[in-house]
Amino acid sequence: MQELGTPAARYRGAVEHRPGLDPAVADVRRAVRVGLAPRAGRGTVVVALSGGADSLALAAATAFEAPKLGLRPVAVVVDHGLQDGSADAAAAAVAAAEGLGLDARAVQVEVGTAGGPEAAARDARYRALRVAAREASAVAVLTGHTLDDQAETVLLGLARGSGATSLQGMPATSDLNGVALLRPLLDVRRETTRAACTALGLRPWADPHNTDPAYARVRVRDRVLPVLEAELGPGIAEALARTATQLREDADAFAEMIDETIEDIVEHAEAGISVSIPALAANPAAVRHRIIRHVVASEFGQSLTRTQTLEVARLVTEWTGQGPIDLPGCRARRIGTRLEFTAR
Amino acid sequence: MQELGTPAARYRGAVEHRPGLDPAVADVRRAVRVGLAPRAGRGTVVVALSGGADSLALAAATAFEAPKLGLRPVAVVVDHGLQDGSADAAAAAVAAAEGLGLDARAVQVEVGTAGGPEAAARDARYRALRVAAREASAVAVLTGHTLDDQAETVLLGLARGSGATSLQGMPATSDLNGVALLRPLLDVRRETTRAACTALGLRPWADPHNTDPAYARVRVRDRVLPVLEAELGPGIAEALARTATQLREDADAFAEMIDETIEDIVEHAEAGISVSIPALAANPAAVRHRIIRHVVASEFGQSLTRTQTLEVARLVTEWTGQGPIDLPGCRARRIGTRLEFTAR
Repeated sequence: MQELGTPAARYRGAVEHRPGLDPAVADVRRAVRVGLAPRAGRGTVVVALSGGADSLALAAATAFEAPKLGLRPVAVVVDHGLQDGSADAAAAAVAAAEGLGLDARAVQVEVGTAGGPEAAARDARYRALRVAAREASAVAVLTGHTLDDQAETVLLGLARGSGATSLQGMPATSDLNGVALLRPLLDVRRETTRAACTALGLRPWADPHNTDPAYARVRVRDRVLPVLEAELGPGIAEALARTATQLREDADAFAEMIDETIEDIVEHAEAGISVSIPALAANPAAVRHRIIRHVVASEFGQSLTRTQTLEVARLVTEWTGQGPIDLPGCRARRIGTRLEFTAR
Repeated sequence: MQELGTPAARYRGAVEHRPGLDPAVADVRRAVRVGLAPRAGRGTVVVALSGGADSLALAAATAFEAPKLGLRPVAVVVDHGLQDGSADAAAAAVAAAEGLGLDARAVQVEVGTAGGPEAAARDARYRALRVAAREASAVAVLTGHTLDDQAETVLLGLARGSGATSLQGMPATSDLNGVALLRPLLDVRRETTRAACTALGLRPWADPHNTDPAYARVRVRDRVLPVLEAELGPGIAEALARTATQLREDADAFAEMIDETIEDIVEHAEAGISVSIPALAANPAAVRHRIIRHVVASEFGQSLTRTQTLEVARLVTEWTGQGPIDLPGCRARRIGTRLEFTAR
């Protein structure tokens, strides 16, 4: 019998003090349970599985949690066909999912070029997931996006624009053309999904794209976030993710306000649409600017820049008899108490 | 006479095609003109001068623009007494201001320790500027904060918190205990202020604190922003500054909404304050969460974290008979159709 105080005894002691479930596995399961709870009942949920640590941990947790909620989990592996051996990688992911007790299959997609390689691959992937979900009459598709993915998305949004809209990251729940798209791991760190895989004896696939600095997301992950954490202190990824959640809330609130008031303040005319100047003037700038952008987007399908929006707003707030303003797809001018947008 | 096509002739030609004003000088002057225009009339404006490129370019532009707007510009140099030779540096800045035709003086301050060295120096500086502005019966104090300072402030805000409140940077116009504080250069790049100084033959003082990596702001400037620009593409500083402006607009709009509704939905009681549950439930989450934070801040002087705010909000949105919630300085509980906060 080993004495107390020897390494092996201490190790046994440590295990005895943390009996049962690995904490990383528990964290991922809890997140999946919370995410799936509103969908409890009869039905199928599709796990989007790449074979990487995030989606593999998600698949394992869903295999465990979904049946307890009356849901049948299946895994769909999208083979983008962009790399040599992608079919083998997909087959390995399918086998891993089957090892977790999931029905699983691979789906080959053809990736276009629209919007650049990352956007094209994403479009093809979500299209395939939607089709797979419809075929399975699934109530939801689950993806393994983590808190780290969210932080990266916020920084990538900053590179594309500014303000709450660009920085609101990915929603935890959204609509994939009629099927719910759930991201239950948005509050879970990537290292937790890795630890969960290790604890479960799962060997995640290391996608070579995930280390290719040709991708902006890889540069953000490998070069930008580590510098932010080193220079501003740890917790930056969490702060970025919290920021995304709060800015999404803010954006939703503004969208709701505009939905509730827009029909009372616009008038549709033959050549376009007009908005009440007194109503625009009575609103705070944040709402006024959003109404202007909303009207141009919904009526003419164009997205105004900040500079264009401010120039239009000055027809309301700094009226000195300015002439019409040419905008993408339309022209804005002030006529009496109306701000009028007409097609160009 | 030199022939066309020789280097000197081309140089003369270039000068002839851009006659008169250096573009950087013009940019800084325009920004100051726009910033001062609403204050036009009789009065004094105080330029906060450190002697660095930003404030020196600001002083030069204010010396040029203020008199045309009926304003008398004076410069105040705050000597923080934190470095050897700080009195000499202050005297040199005073001399530079006088060289620009400004009345100028140095003010010595005593820097405390509250909030850390950067916050303490800032507090002492603004206090001295306010006193100087009052003594001069000034209508405004101008500081030389640039777009780059704004971008740094947004990133520093991220290190301290998250969401629109943390990321809204510095306002272009604010109140310094009764005196207007203007930051007319928030849309001007730092390199523009440097170029303006060069064009005007001004030699800015290089504050050693500006290169000391012990300061988070210096690390953001020298290490974080360059990496962001390199990896995400140029324009990140501008995107951060635009983000600050838009998030400030958003925050102002929410504050206005809450100001307009708060008295209708709260009731003051002996032991605290209560808020109408139906009113909270009818508002979007962004407004509901801000009302909860606002009530606790104004009634108990405490700032709730995101996690605490969400827990209180669940008393409204996910009511299952939860017990009271202990918060900093108070306790929240649901009683009937009221959310009640009482002192602890």
